[in-house]
Formats: sequence, C-alpha cells, structure tokens
Amino acid sequence: MLGYFGPAGTFTHQALLTISTEEAIPFATVGEALDAVRSGAVEAVMVPIENSVEGGVSATLDTLAAGRRLMIVREVLVPVQFNLYARPGTALADVRRVITHPHSAAQTRGWTAANLPSAVVVEGGSNAASAIEVADPRSRFDAAICGQIAGEMYGLEAIATRIADNDSAVTRFVLVARPAEPPARTGADKTTLVAYMHTDHAGALLEILEQFSGRGVSLCRIESRPTKTGMGNYCFSIDAEGHLRDPRVAEAMLGLHRICEDVVFLGSYPRADGVRPAVARGFTDSDFEAAVDWYATLVNPVND
Amino acid sequence: MLGYFGPAGTFTHQALLTISTEEAIPFATVGEALDAVRSGAVEAVMVPIENSVEGGVSATLDTLAAGRRLMIVREVLVPVQFNLYARPGTALADVRRVITHPHSAAQTRGWTAANLPSAVVVEGGSNAASAIEVADPRSRFDAAICGQIAGEMYGLEAIATRIADNDSAVTRFVLVARPAEPPARTGADKTTLVAYMHTDHAGALLEILEQFSGRGVSLCRIESRPTKTGMGNYCFSIDAEGHLRDPRVAEAMLGLHRICEDVVFLGSYPRADGVRPAVARGFTDSDFEAAVDWYATLVNPVND
Amino acid sequence: MLGYFGPAGTFTHQALLTISTEEAIPFATVGEALDAVRSGAVEAVMVPIENSVEGGVSATLDTLAAGRRLMIVREVLVPVQFNLYARPGTALADVRRVITHPHSAAQTRGWTAANLPSAVVVEGGSNAASAIEVADPRSRFDAAICGQIAGEMYGLEAIATRIADNDSAVTRFVLVARPAEPPARTGADKTTLVAYMHTDHAGALLEILEQFSGRGVSLCRIESRPTKTGMGNYCFSIDAEGHLRDPRVAEAMLGLHRICEDVVFLGSYPRADGVRPAVARGFTDSDFEAAVDWYATLVNPVND
Amino acid sequence: MLGYFGPAGTFTHQALLTISTEEAIPFATVGEALDAVRSGAVEAVMVPIENSVEGGVSATLDTLAAGRRLMIVREVLVPVQFNLYARPGTALADVRRVITHPHSAAQTRGWTAANLPSAVVVEGGSNAASAIEVADPRSRFDAAICGQIAGEMYGLEAIATRIADNDSAVTRFVLVARPAEPPARTGADKTTLVAYMHTDHAGALLEILEQFSGRGVSLCRIESRPTKTGMGNYCFSIDAEGHLRDPRVAEAMLGLHRICEDVVFLGSYPRADGVRPAVARGFTDSDFEAAVDWYATLVNPVND
Repeated sequence: MLGYFGPAGTFTHQALLTISTEEAIPFATVGEALDAVRSGAVEAVMVPIENSVEGGVSATLDTLAAGRRLMIVREVLVPVQFNLYARPGTALADVRRVITHPHSAAQTRGWTAANLPSAVVVEGGSNAASAIEVADPRSRFDAAICGQIAGEMYGLEAIATRIADNDSAVTRFVLVARPAEPPARTGADKTTLVAYMHTDHAGALLEILEQFSGRGVSLCRIESRPTKTGMGNYCFSIDAEGHLRDPRVAEAMLGLHRICEDVVFLGSYPRADGVRPAVARGFTDSDFEAAVDWYATLVNPVND
Repeated sequence: MLGYFGPAGTFTHQALLTISTEEAIPFATVGEALDAVRSGAVEAVMVPIENSVEGGVSATLDTLAAGRRLMIVREVLVPVQFNLYARPGTALADVRRVITHPHSAAQTRGWTAANLPSAVVVEGGSNAASAIEVADPRSRFDAAICGQIAGEMYGLEAIATRIADNDSAVTRFVLVARPAEPPARTGADKTTLVAYMHTDHAGALLEILEQFSGRGVSLCRIESRPTKTGMGNYCFSIDAEGHLRDPRVAEAMLGLHRICEDVVFLGSYPRADGVRPAVARGFTDSDFEAAVDWYATLVNPVND
Repeated sequence: MLGYFGPAGTFTHQALLTISTEEAIPFATVGEALDAVRSGAVEAVMVPIENSVEGGVSATLDTLAAGRRLMIVREVLVPVQFNLYARPGTALADVRRVITHPHSAAQTRGWTAANLPSAVVVEGGSNAASAIEVADPRSRFDAAICGQIAGEMYGLEAIATRIADNDSAVTRFVLVARPAEPPARTGADKTTLVAYMHTDHAGALLEILEQFSGRGVSLCRIESRPTKTGMGNYCFSIDAEGHLRDPRVAEAMLGLHRICEDVVFLGSYPRADGVRPAVARGFTDSDFEAAVDWYATLVNPVND
Repeated sequence: MLGYFGPAGTFTHQALLTISTEEAIPFATVGEALDAVRSGAVEAVMVPIENSVEGGVSATLDTLAAGRRLMIVREVLVPVQFNLYARPGTALADVRRVITHPHSAAQTRGWTAANLPSAVVVEGGSNAASAIEVADPRSRFDAAICGQIAGEMYGLEAIATRIADNDSAVTRFVLVARPAEPPARTGADKTTLVAYMHTDHAGALLEILEQFSGRGVSLCRIESRPTKTGMGNYCFSIDAEGHLRDPRVAEAMLGLHRICEDVVFLGSYPRADGVRPAVARGFTDSDFEAAVDWYATLVNPVND
C-alpha cells in the first residue's frame, strides 16, 4: 500500500497517480506520511520536496533528515497550474474571501492583486483542504485557489483559469521508502543527502563542495537548513548528479563521511528529467578503473 | 513613520518595539511592508528574515531581492516563546480546534501531539491573526498558539505556557529602509547580499564562496533560493561577517560583482549579537593598507 | 653601458647582441654581473634565467631574489644549437677529451654517446670558456661543445654541427636593471616575482596559486627554490601572465603581499613571444572598472 | 652489489657507506648509475637528489623520471661540510687556482671571496674528481674544495676547514632499485612521484595540489622540471608525506592518475628524519575504514 501527503486532490496526489493508480492513503502532514513508512504501515509515500518558484519544502527536508533513516526511490515532476474555484453559481465579482495554501497564494499574488484587488486571501493547510472548505455551503470563503484535480474532486466550478503568475512553475515530488539496496544505475541518476559539519567552522561549506567538485560531480540543488541547535548552525541538503554506485559519487560520499560530523544518505534514484550528466575527463567509470589497475601495479609490480 | 509586518502583537511587532515605541503601521504582508518603504509611505519597516528552527523566511528573502533596491540598516534577535491562549474560562480539556501560524505549528508540534492528541491544528496567517480569530466568541477555534504579546493584546488567557519544543528558538528581524550610505562601521557588522550566477554552471557556488574565503571573510548564513526561472536555477542569499567598508569585504564584493551576473547589495549593519569577527593574519585593515603602500613603491620606486 | 654574463661568445652574449650592438662588459659570474648593476657600474646586464631543456638557472634565480632589489626590463629567447669545435686540422676520430658547460654536456649527451663513445666529457665553466681552453694549443682537450658564435670567435673549426639531442631547445635571457617605473603595458606582458611563505605550512603553495587563479591570472613558470635555511624550506619563483598595472595582476600582487612573509617583485616587461593572454570573463580591465564603479554606488547611493 | 655516483670519496659515497660498507661500484654520471640498475648490473645505487642550499639535482630528477621505471627504497641525509685541500706543503697564500664541483663552488663563494679574493675557482665534475686532479703533482690547480672523505682519500692536506657559507647545509641522497613491492609502512614515510599534465592548461598545478590537500596529504618538496618539449611545458617532481599504502596517499595517487597525462611513481620509503606526519581529523586510516564500512551499509542496508 502506498500513501501520500493529502488530502486527495492535491498536486502530491496527482504526482502519485502518475506512477500508481492503486488506492493510496492520504496523510494530514508530511511528518505523518513519513512516519507511516518508518512504522511499516505503508510501503512508500509521495511527498513534495521542492518547487521551482517557492524553493525547498522545509517540512519534507527536515523530516527526511531527522529520525529513522528513509530512502528516496523515485522522483516526479508536476507542472503546477492554478485555477480559481467556487461553488457553482458564484461570479468572479462576488468573490470577497479566498482560501488557499500559502505557496499557492504566493504563486498567484500578481493575479489576485490585479483581478481581485479588494478580496482577502487567507492561507489554509493545502489546496485540497481549501477546496473542501469552499465546497461547504456554510463556508465563510467564496473561492479557493487550487489545481484542477482538487477543484473537480470537490464539485467546484472554475471561475478563472491559469492564474499562476509564473506559467512554468514545476513542483518536484519524491517517493520515499524504507532503506534498501538503491534502484539500479540508469546513467541519469540523482543522489540526495544531508551533510552536517563537525562545527560551524568557517569554510565548512567550501570543504563540502570540494568533495564533489574534486571528483567531477555537479550539484543539482543545495540548501542550508538550520540544525535547530541555535542561530547560525546549518546543515546542507544536497542533490548531486549521479548514483551512489558511480565511482565518482562513491568517492565523494566517502570523502564527505570523513570530513563531516554526520552524513544522512537519502537515496540514489533515476532523474525524472532523464538528463545524463556531462562527465569530465578523468571522472568516467573507466578512468576510475584504470587508476585502480595502475595502483595495483605499483603495490605489486611484476618485473619483466 | 515606521512600519512592520503585522498585525499588532506579532513577534515582528515586538522586535520593532525594542528599537522604537512610537506609533507604527502594521502591514498585512511582507511584500506590502517593503513596498511601503519603496514608495516612501514609511521610513523603514521591520520584517522577519530567519528563524533558528524554521530557517529563512522566503517571503522576505525573495521580496528583498527583487524589485527596487532596499537596504537593511539594523537587525534584532527575539527569543521565540509560545503559549496556548484561549477565551477566558476555557479549560485545556475543552480544546478541540487550534489555530496558529505554520511556523508556530511546526515549533510546537511535539507539545500538541503529547498534550492535545485529538485536537486539530489549523494554520492561519500569523500568530496575532490567530489570537484575533480566537478572541471572536463566534470563532470555530478554541485556542491559538502565539506569543505573550499577542495573547494579552487580544484579551485571551494562557492555558499552557512555554510550549515550544525547542526552548531556545530565536527569530531574527531586520529593519529595512531605502538605499543610503550604510551605517558606520562598528567592528561587529554584517553584510547581506544576493548573488546571481551568469548561468547555473557547475562550480558556481564554489566560486562565490572563494570570493569570501580568499579574502578571509566568513559567512554567517547562506541560502539558495530559486530564481523562479526554472527548476534548478538558484541564487544565493548571503550574510557575511564584516562591513562593506572593511577592505576585505570590499574586495570580496568587487570580486563577486566581476564573476556574477548580478549582485544585490542589501546592507551592512551592526550585528545584534555584537560578536566581532576573528580576522586572520593577512586580512586586517592594516594588512590591506600595507599591501597598497607596498604596491605604490613598485609602480613608482624611488631609487635611494 | 650594458654588461652580460660572459665571456664573449656565449649564448648570453648573443642574446645581448639582439638588443644592442654597443660595446658591453662581460662578467665572470651571474652574481658579479648583477652586483655591477646594483653598484651602478653598469646600466643593465643580460643573464640567462631558464632553459627549455635544463630548467631554471639557479644562480640567476637565487641572486635576483637575494640582496638589493633589481628589476627585469626585457626578455630575449635564443634558440640553442650546439656544434663540436676543435683546433683546425682535428678529425672527429681524434677526439678523446671534450670540454663544455654542464648544461651543454647534458643537452648533447645522446650525440656524444653515439658518436664519441670512448671520449671523456669534462664540464667547464661556460661554452665560451671551453672554446678558449681548446683554442690553446697546449690544452689537454681536443674539442669543445659550444655555439657558433663562441667557436668562431676563438678560431676553432666545427667538426660536427647541430649535435643537440633536442633540436628545439631555447634559452630565455633577461635584461636586469635597477628598480624604476616598469616598462609600459603592451598587452602581452609578463611579471616575475619571488614569494616567501610565513612558514613552511601545509598548503602554502596552494594559497599562493589561489591568489593568481582567483583573479584569472595564469602562470608561465613556477619553480621552488630552497630558502637556504634548512631542508624543506622553499620559496617560489614565479612568472605570471600580465603586467603589474593590469588590475587583475595588481590585485593578485596585493593578495600575495598580505598572505606571504615576503614578496620580491622582479619586474613587468613585454613577453619575447608576444603572446597575449586569454583573459576570462570577469577579469578584463573593464570588469574591474565596472566593479569599482558599482561599489561606489553602494557606499554613496544617490536616491532617485 | 651496490653502486653510487662516484668517484670514491664524494658525499654520495659517504651516504652509501652509512648503509653498507661492502665494496660498491662508482659510476661516472648519475645516468650511468641508474642505467646500471635498469640493466641489472647492480642491485641498487646511491645518488644525490636534493641539496638544502642548491636545490634539486636536475640530473637525478630527470633521469629518474625518464626511461624504464625505477624505485627509491631509502633516503639518507648527509650534512655537507667543505674544507680546502691542497698537496702537502701548500700554504693558503700560494693558492691561485681552485677546482671544485659547481655546487661546492656555490656553497663556498662567500669564503673564497673573503679569503682567496684573487684566486680563480674552476668548476670540475665532482668534489672527488677535483681532489684527484689536485693530487696530481702536474696539475694546474693548487687546491680543491671538497669534503673530508675525498681530501683524505687522495692524500691531500686541509689548509682551511669548515669553509661552507651556510654551516647547516644538508644533502639528501636516495638509494634506487628496480620496481618491487615498496618497503613496509613505518608511519614515517615519504612518497616520490612525477606528475605530467595533459596539457599545460592554466590551473593544472592547482589541480595537482588539490589531489593532495583534499586528502590531507602534505608535500615535502615540489619542483617543476621542463618536459623538454618546449619552453613553458613543465612536469612536477613531488615528495609527499606518507606511504603508497596509507589510504589517504592511495586515494591521492588514484586522483592524480585520473587527472594527469602520466604519473611516474618513484617509491615509498622511510623518511631519514623519522618525522611522523600530523594527520588531520578525517584522514587517519580509521577514518578511511569507517567511511568504507558506512558506504557498505548504504549499498546493502540491513533493515532492522
């Protein structure tokens, strides 16, 4: 059984549907969803991890990094498009109070300022929860900003469509399972991890980056997150190009483990965009193999 | 006239009160507060920029970076402590529905799970707005999680105190004004900026960090933020130790300007914690002056 | 009056003749030649600094770095070609004992092994001195390995020509004067210096190199030389692309001065090969100027 | 049978005597000595590699790097002290012509200038050869500058002692054998190698150094040597702290092999000075082992 950060009708639900149409369990928070994997209640859950406009999803990043280890096994990209949904019969001119998720509010701010200048936008827990709220005839809200799946699921009517300020917004979701052997290498993989420094010493981030750059590994994403131990203490959540079994990534991971206080490996999995990394001279698998073969001749030379 | 991200009674309001008790204007969003500075409607506004548990405040980081240039002139640290407030007469056992800001919800999650296991926590727009909601006798909510100032301002009663999971949480606020000559150097200053790379080329962040490390400048904070131009494109929001007029910071800023597509300078201002940086050998003001004097003798030697 | 590391007929003499045919004073050692400049006895002297096969000329590198400051004002490249010279009437088969400079011996080792397998090669002080020795009818030597100018100057006969093992060997000579304003920028310049670290700390060389790489300055030559204070203590003799007045070189020099115990500037002068450096984005003169202009607007903004 | 760069009586001979008093074969040049090892004519030879005042011995560095691979198995440090030797009966005042090795001439230049201002110093092939020359009653030379062993071996008399300008000069010698399994780790070892870059690209040396610094390996010596393929093309002769079998050195060697056009391994051997490296946190053997163990749990997790 799979699960997802619900309720039904969110973009997360939509992301899950792209990989499985079996019945799945919605969870009220990202934390509950991940804990259900940890406890074995479900096999895996889909959660949002990053939005191209709003940035990383802190709840997911922090809950993945803390507690019993989990593993990302898949990623899904979903274009994010918003409509304004109301109870059937509502006209745009009637809309006084709008409810939506804070991210959705942020991504439609321009449109609401231009088209609903006097309306109040209140932030709710999710897009789908906002649709549910508006679907209730006693609701104090006239409309919800949400995606098509949520609007239709709760019987609302779109009174304005494609209202996102940035038409190309994308949200990235990940399917999270319990630790196991990572999925096989595909040649277009991504590795996610969290690195904690020994202390917040000057240059710590530079050293982390050098573990990757020195092995020809590019980063897709790097975010600092507070370690919650005091202002100014950060850890770094990182997506690196390549798979744990790529020799260049393996050596970078070994290097990180040595210089860091802790490294939390969160999985190697196929990239949703299928992009293969440009591996520079000296960092291909065969370069690594050739070096190992050469080293063997130094340690045990055969005089000819 | 000053302003702040309101409503009255938030921690932001409290931060403002530590530097001025004159009447000030609350704004409904960080964006409106900053725009009021840009338009000249107010002199300066107080906004939250970072929380030691929840991380950077995206709305502030993004709104500061975009649009007409602004300047941070001061920072304030406020210890964040939460109580559970209800209408007078409510008992803890009666609490079924709680409202609070998403950050506050996140920071008290452990307490509510332990003490209000069956209550629903709904996320509202701000701590103070949650208190206002609960103060309304017709409210569907029984209690609000907020700070003391908000609870008392709206006539509520604390039915549980010090409920934050992390007792030492701190939020950092900044006072933002229009660009002017930065405040004078104090020896314990901080410089805030946003760096955009020419392209998202591998190693871009490494190059940015080297501009600082190569001049002996430590960083207090670095966060990636999406540039909103597509998944995988980031800019970096940075707090560096030191003042724009410190020669080591000046040279780092010049270096950044050369290698970056754009650098947005957001101010040099005294650190709230008064910590003076440990400046390594070779990077003091007098080291910079001595180097300049020496260079002058090379370009125009006087034969003796 | 100019001077050179003599005697007459050496490649150094030949290098000097390419820039001046006025009478010039030969000096017996590089040290005497440079001291004659220091004392004002001559205006400038030509000395060898590097050979494409044998490497740096230690005597020149060390004597330039120590003592009263001097300045390189010009460089000359001379293709090095050797012949075997003997007293008129000598046949190749008669040659038993050969004399030549150690560098010349090294550069013709293959030829002598193949063509004079049983001859003894003795190392003398210079090619020209070897020619002088052989020119003496009472000499115990039958032949000298030297350049054409020396062989002919002392009345010898070439009994084998073009005997260098490496046909493309080049020696680099520099004209050294007292410190003055360096020659004007030409766009194809070179800067020579010696850097001494504070202590022989791990990573010192890396830091030196970063002063250049971080400002987009490539190096043409870097050699370690013992500081003569104990095994394992080195300084670094460096030729960098560009002129002291190029902003990127200026900033690198300032950086070096700050991190080093001592930096000896030995001149900026036109490159003999006329090669213009490829200056990367961010490091052109106008990039430096633009950064300075931008910085000025931060320190003294004009509100519009 | 062992050999050495002779003739008998040189400091090299003295270095060999510290490790073996068996009869050994002197060779006229470093090249001949090393070729005798390559051909199997001798087991191993002692050659000089570096002098604390004069720097690297180019002939040794270049001959080790080129041709069939050899391996350094031991190093010896010999304090270098010079005396002035003459035929019995010669007084200091009689000395007009002095012969010595160029390095010895360089290291006693101050003394001869002060004490034999009008004498001519001619450079011969070795200190011992100079003693042999002076021992010949028909010699045109009055005295030789050489070490005690050479002076006494050829029946000369010291007419001035301890005449080196730098009293603490040391020469480093290495015992070179055919490739075999390197001597066992002692914890105080050194590894010698030569690195050739793919092309003379800007930043090549920086990349080489980063292979070491990134694995916590300090360098004892680094010298550029021309590759003899044209002015401006260099390879780098390096002594690194540690043994080929130290995991940090092994990983650095693998890294070098990947980024370089060629790497010539010249041996891992006990340091003559017995100094143990200070291995920083993250780079000890156990740090490397712990990282490997951790990696294994990622690739093959055992769910508990």
